[in-house]
Amino acid sequence: MATLTSREEDYSRWYNELVVKADMAENSGVRGCMVIKPYGYAIWEKMQRQLDQMFKDTGHENAYFPIFIPKSYLSKEADHVEGFAKECAVVTHYRLKNAPDGSGVIVDPEAKLEEELIVRPTSETIIWNTYKNWVKSYRDLPILVNQWANVVRWEMRTRLFLRTAEFLWQEGHTAHATEEEAVIEAEKMLNVYADFVENFMGIPVIKGVKSPSERFAGAEETYSIEAMMQDGKALQAGTSHFLGQNFARAFDVKYQSKEGTQEYVWATSWGVSTRLIGALIMTHSDDRGLVLPPNIAPIQVVIVPVHRTDEQLETISRVANDIRSQLGNKGISVKYDDRNEYKPGWKFNEYELKGIPVRITIGPKDLENNQVEIARRDTLEKHFTPIEGVAEHVRNLLKEIQDNIYAKAKEHRDSLITKVDTYEEFKRVLDEEGGFILAHWDGSAEVEEKIKNETKATIRCIPLDAEEEDGVCVYSGNPSKKRVLFARAY
Amino acid sequence: MATLTSREEDYSRWYNELVVKADMAENSGVRGCMVIKPYGYAIWEKMQRQLDQMFKDTGHENAYFPIFIPKSYLSKEADHVEGFAKECAVVTHYRLKNAPDGSGVIVDPEAKLEEELIVRPTSETIIWNTYKNWVKSYRDLPILVNQWANVVRWEMRTRLFLRTAEFLWQEGHTAHATEEEAVIEAEKMLNVYADFVENFMGIPVIKGVKSPSERFAGAEETYSIEAMMQDGKALQAGTSHFLGQNFARAFDVKYQSKEGTQEYVWATSWGVSTRLIGALIMTHSDDRGLVLPPNIAPIQVVIVPVHRTDEQLETISRVANDIRSQLGNKGISVKYDDRNEYKPGWKFNEYELKGIPVRITIGPKDLENNQVEIARRDTLEKHFTPIEGVAEHVRNLLKEIQDNIYAKAKEHRDSLITKVDTYEEFKRVLDEEGGFILAHWDGSAEVEEKIKNETKATIRCIPLDAEEEDGVCVYSGNPSKKRVLFARAY
Repeated sequence: MATLTSREEDYSRWYNELVVKADMAENSGVRGCMVIKPYGYAIWEKMQRQLDQMFKDTGHENAYFPIFIPKSYLSKEADHVEGFAKECAVVTHYRLKNAPDGSGVIVDPEAKLEEELIVRPTSETIIWNTYKNWVKSYRDLPILVNQWANVVRWEMRTRLFLRTAEFLWQEGHTAHATEEEAVIEAEKMLNVYADFVENFMGIPVIKGVKSPSERFAGAEETYSIEAMMQDGKALQAGTSHFLGQNFARAFDVKYQSKEGTQEYVWATSWGVSTRLIGALIMTHSDDRGLVLPPNIAPIQVVIVPVHRTDEQLETISRVANDIRSQLGNKGISVKYDDRNEYKPGWKFNEYELKGIPVRITIGPKDLENNQVEIARRDTLEKHFTPIEGVAEHVRNLLKEIQDNIYAKAKEHRDSLITKVDTYEEFKRVLDEEGGFILAHWDGSAEVEEKIKNETKATIRCIPLDAEEEDGVCVYSGNPSKKRVLFARAY
Repeated sequence: MATLTSREEDYSRWYNELVVKADMAENSGVRGCMVIKPYGYAIWEKMQRQLDQMFKDTGHENAYFPIFIPKSYLSKEADHVEGFAKECAVVTHYRLKNAPDGSGVIVDPEAKLEEELIVRPTSETIIWNTYKNWVKSYRDLPILVNQWANVVRWEMRTRLFLRTAEFLWQEGHTAHATEEEAVIEAEKMLNVYADFVENFMGIPVIKGVKSPSERFAGAEETYSIEAMMQDGKALQAGTSHFLGQNFARAFDVKYQSKEGTQEYVWATSWGVSTRLIGALIMTHSDDRGLVLPPNIAPIQVVIVPVHRTDEQLETISRVANDIRSQLGNKGISVKYDDRNEYKPGWKFNEYELKGIPVRITIGPKDLENNQVEIARRDTLEKHFTPIEGVAEHVRNLLKEIQDNIYAKAKEHRDSLITKVDTYEEFKRVLDEEGGFILAHWDGSAEVEEKIKNETKATIRCIPLDAEEEDGVCVYSGNPSKKRVLFARAY
């Protein structure tokens, strides 16, 4: 097994190699589109199952809307079309035919669509065109719907999980009678995301709102959770949008109020995607491979026998299978790898690469001592534990590992937040340390744009918990009441 | 609530109305594409969860492959491109721009793709192009992968669930070292489908193989399960294909055998789709609405209070909530509908329309007698049962309903299978009774084609359990060894 490029040597290459070598994903024959391999997809399934339960616990139902959006729909909301028309896949024909010269198949020019269809980059327009028929009275509200789907954005520079032409995501689309209710919903879902990303994926995040120029195309307010990668670059981990009445106006969605008046409906939308898997990898993993928080690991424990003879293997297997079933009863997923074609050392490397949180090694000597050896993936520490009570021990250990992975990520993230008060310091910190920079900003789009052009740092968010504090903008010197969060970002 | 057109009056209209009124699905603004509404999608989720578990129990893993297929890939397998080129959505451009006249957005002619992309109608080609890199040695086999995805086939005449331009499905794609192993896999998955459709969806099916002209484009053998709808028309409920080495040859996928030789890989693919929801509706439902088998019903039990005063409602609610939690503990999904805006009679109709298997009605008099009223959706029968032990009673009743729905469908299906020995009888039965016709066929594609043109009946399958029997083809009089299954079909 070839070793990985180290993070220090080349973080970007380390990431690309790791995604492929750990069997998470690979590039496909289609420009910018990835193949999510079974191991990567198993992580996505665990994420989906958890998120889906959290959505249902907060009153949402799933539905499914068409993948195609008529070009005219996209045009109905002015900001929205500006944001999404530039990077979309356009279906213009509905048939191929044999080439007259026998060279293969060609697009049949007679099968041209009257109106082109866009492969959805996001579904606000097709969904609000549908909600028009679902909403008549205040009794029909709220609509709390989520969709699990693939979407396509024609990105020019792509990277596995982080930025791909096609990706998988969920998109919630809700409709409400009042502005207040919609704002509460948008904030509620931001909190669901923060809870999920922190407690299941072990990634600490900062909650905030976007500056107007970084808002979702068509939103009145965009909330986001922002994470920090090991290399000091930020990553937007999820967004929740308060859409005001923009889509209701564009698609004429009104309801009759209790008082009998006709009112436009208020909207939210919110989404997280397979991009989160990129964040997972870049937050926790090390030069030996993935480090997976137990809550998200498809295999939480692997058992590896170390033996010379078939007889030894048989005895070890009896104990291993017993431990496996004890762990299984506690809801822990276990793999027992008794393959003979591979040596224990090879297996150790393989499961370190794959980020399995706990490895149990069993050899003949261990059995004599009524113990097994436990190795933690997060700290790489090893210890022995008695066979009696091993399941309870491992269960507690998995909790400890989950907590430790989060704590470690949080410590690192916190060490990468710097308050700066001058533009010189801003630039120095950005270049020398990276990370998040908390600085005063005068609120103008011009300054935001200039800082972005000069430093490649953008305003990641205006933190929800930002303290009121008198200050002056690091760039313009104009007065400011709050620090905002800058960073270079993925 | 408007009543449904009866099945006798117009079966087709009954179906279309039912799908919409029961909140299962509706047509979207995009030609041929449907919106699957939350109630319909909840059924799909139950189907997915069950099938997914069955796939995993038989050793399969999920993965995800790109939605786009380069035109050249589709052309590599000759039969495959013939079958799928005629009805596909073709992406030719990757950007829109503002129209110079300010009239909206237009396709940017400068953003033309070098090679057109097809929105996947099925994924054999993109997947085998990927497997090329996954397979080197016999140790890399078998590959047992499934994908949950949306696919697009540009059908001209569409119908909700039964035939839509976009639909949801799963597609299994496996790779094997030997022909025998691939055939076993194709047959195993046919049996998984039959098990699922019969025992979870309550739909009896006949297992068989397709005639060569009805095979999947690119398959050596297509296995299918065939169901019979109430109106005497057949519906193909699932297919499993033995693909031979066709895709391995087209994409040059070889492995090194234990003996060191280079061999082409053997393949299968298999799929079921949201079409099954159409089969579910058309098999069991009646003029009052859906009839859902308990195993597939998102809500298995609804509790409706019947009361005059708030005080009565309070007493009833105490009992109802207790019953709900008892049922919940047994893993039964329950809804308690205590809404005051709707009268009990309205609710009864609503839940009959939605096909909820069991309704529990509780009134003040029932409480005096320590009993509740139970109504079965399948037979529309009502009875009283003591509150003590109601959960156990309902659990047993749900099992009984599941069995009864299947038994009823099977009885009806069996009554619609007719053995015929002459072409006159064949045509008479087809026109007067419909259903499946078991008739001798000489095995020629010409006769199959003629019968199809003259009667619109196709060979649904050659049943796996067909008995060896000397006979003569109903059309040609040529000798035949087996009866095959004909029907008009959806």
